[in-house]
Amino acid sequence: MWTVIATWRMALEGIEKASAMLDQNIDGGEALEAAVKEVEDNPYYKSVGYGGLPNEQGVVELDAGFMNGSTLGVGAVCGVHRIANPIAVARSLSEYETNSILVSEGAEAYAKEHGFQQKDLLTERAEILYENRMKETGKTVLKPYNGHDTVGVCVLDIKGHIDAGTSTSGLFMKKPGRIGDSPIVGSGFYADSAAGAATATGLGEDLMRGCLSYEIVRRMKQGMAVQEACDSALNDLETELIQQRGHCGDLSVVALAKDGSFGAATNIKDFSFTVSQSGKQPIVYVANRADKHTFYEPASQQWMDDYMHERMKPVSRL
Amino acid sequence: MWTVIATWRMALEGIEKASAMLDQNIDGGEALEAAVKEVEDNPYYKSVGYGGLPNEQGVVELDAGFMNGSTLGVGAVCGVHRIANPIAVARSLSEYETNSILVSEGAEAYAKEHGFQQKDLLTERAEILYENRMKETGKTVLKPYNGHDTVGVCVLDIKGHIDAGTSTSGLFMKKPGRIGDSPIVGSGFYADSAAGAATATGLGEDLMRGCLSYEIVRRMKQGMAVQEACDSALNDLETELIQQRGHCGDLSVVALAKDGSFGAATNIKDFSFTVSQSGKQPIVYVANRADKHTFYEPASQQWMDDYMHERMKPVSRL
Repeated sequence: MWTVIATWRMALEGIEKASAMLDQNIDGGEALEAAVKEVEDNPYYKSVGYGGLPNEQGVVELDAGFMNGSTLGVGAVCGVHRIANPIAVARSLSEYETNSILVSEGAEAYAKEHGFQQKDLLTERAEILYENRMKETGKTVLKPYNGHDTVGVCVLDIKGHIDAGTSTSGLFMKKPGRIGDSPIVGSGFYADSAAGAATATGLGEDLMRGCLSYEIVRRMKQGMAVQEACDSALNDLETELIQQRGHCGDLSVVALAKDGSFGAATNIKDFSFTVSQSGKQPIVYVANRADKHTFYEPASQQWMDDYMHERMKPVSRL
Repeated sequence: MWTVIATWRMALEGIEKASAMLDQNIDGGEALEAAVKEVEDNPYYKSVGYGGLPNEQGVVELDAGFMNGSTLGVGAVCGVHRIANPIAVARSLSEYETNSILVSEGAEAYAKEHGFQQKDLLTERAEILYENRMKETGKTVLKPYNGHDTVGVCVLDIKGHIDAGTSTSGLFMKKPGRIGDSPIVGSGFYADSAAGAATATGLGEDLMRGCLSYEIVRRMKQGMAVQEACDSALNDLETELIQQRGHCGDLSVVALAKDGSFGAATNIKDFSFTVSQSGKQPIVYVANRADKHTFYEPASQQWMDDYMHERMKPVSRL
């Protein structure tokens, strides 16, 4: 039996692709890469890969991370330009003993040298949204935009091998060179085939203060069930952030355990995630928290239609 | 009462400076920054700041991280050139809600804009060592050099406030853009004033597979004594790496607890670290592990003399 879980509805098409691969006993890491690539390639998903929203200088900068839960191999790229599929580069880097996390031009040079596809990442659509935002806010008061939907995927393949991976364009209107939790092992993603995997999305600067993905996997390793691990770790971090800082940004996680069970937790309204398991159809769930527990149910057709409608609606210059 | 602990003998002069500041009730973060700057500025310490050994292209690239254990504020710079004191930039970034981890050119632009000192970091001494290494190994078989002495400092000030910070030039002969654990929160450093702080040095790619600094602080938070937290967390990671990967790189850590007690653990021979506490003289200890426990004793005068002699001995081109 295999399981794959990913943050957000946007992962659905990728999860369908990964599911077909996992049914054919293809390695979980390869299936994960295929799933994330599908999101990176979609021009309508404005927080990941091609079509991602740019930084405050109008440049699309991408981050991605990957962890192989059987070897504990970690790879990541941070703040890269013109790389079509950062997840593929991150996964490739996870095979190395050293030099497996590369930033900026060094990462781009590695990608070029190893034949990874180059791509102009800024779509006209993203450019229009950027220009509109500049007009709305004025150049002097740019604040990072609140939307920060990282795609994070966890896979358990039929061999019992577990992986986790992420890809994002980060905060819209971020400072050049800013990275969040997504390429940071332990914060944005963590995998250990002896326990499970977790991946996070939300305000990276807050997620990393508690190494949230590592903490969820660690709790599972100590015997906690996956849903309880997600809820308790996220709630604990939120409580600590509110105590120490007076506020807490958006935090959402998904995770899977080595027995194929899965969980999710969130402090936002209507956090969507996508799950597929051997012998079943992929399902998009919508999660909400009540009384410190996250509950979820399959997204309605209306919700699904609205989601894509919102992402694909025409944009025009202000 | 205050305590400051740092990796390696090379931190001694900085720790002396920080001690004088802590005696005057200066904030722990400021004292930490002063301690690390002293190491960054020393041209004979070839793994940190000015005089640091370059990457395989002959360029000095620096990383630094800082965490404020009271606010859980995190700042870091990754893969930066021409910044005299990366720790100062990292600490400054830890004050921001967002955009607090910056890589490469984005980090350099921030540093320049905020008036941080620019500096040509490559010394003639480092250049000679680089050229000699190139001649020894030949251009086709460059391997990262085994020495990777990150300076990591943990401070508890008299107000009970705890910080952690790191600075490094990373692996000698690393690939351009490579970062290790040093700028990665949870791996290279972690601080929580409710428990303690920890910082790591060694092979960054291995240290980050277990979020080692976070894990040590977490164990202290659950009530474990600092020395036991260091030993047990390091041993557990080493065991897991050997099981999963068949080998494990150099791992060393230092930590302090909120009661001012300190600890260290290592899997190498003669790991040195420096400690200072209110009312006492700074001491350099030399640590070794036996039977899964790390033991340490003050460095002999001979050891101290040999350490500086080794670092300051004349170098000449092969």
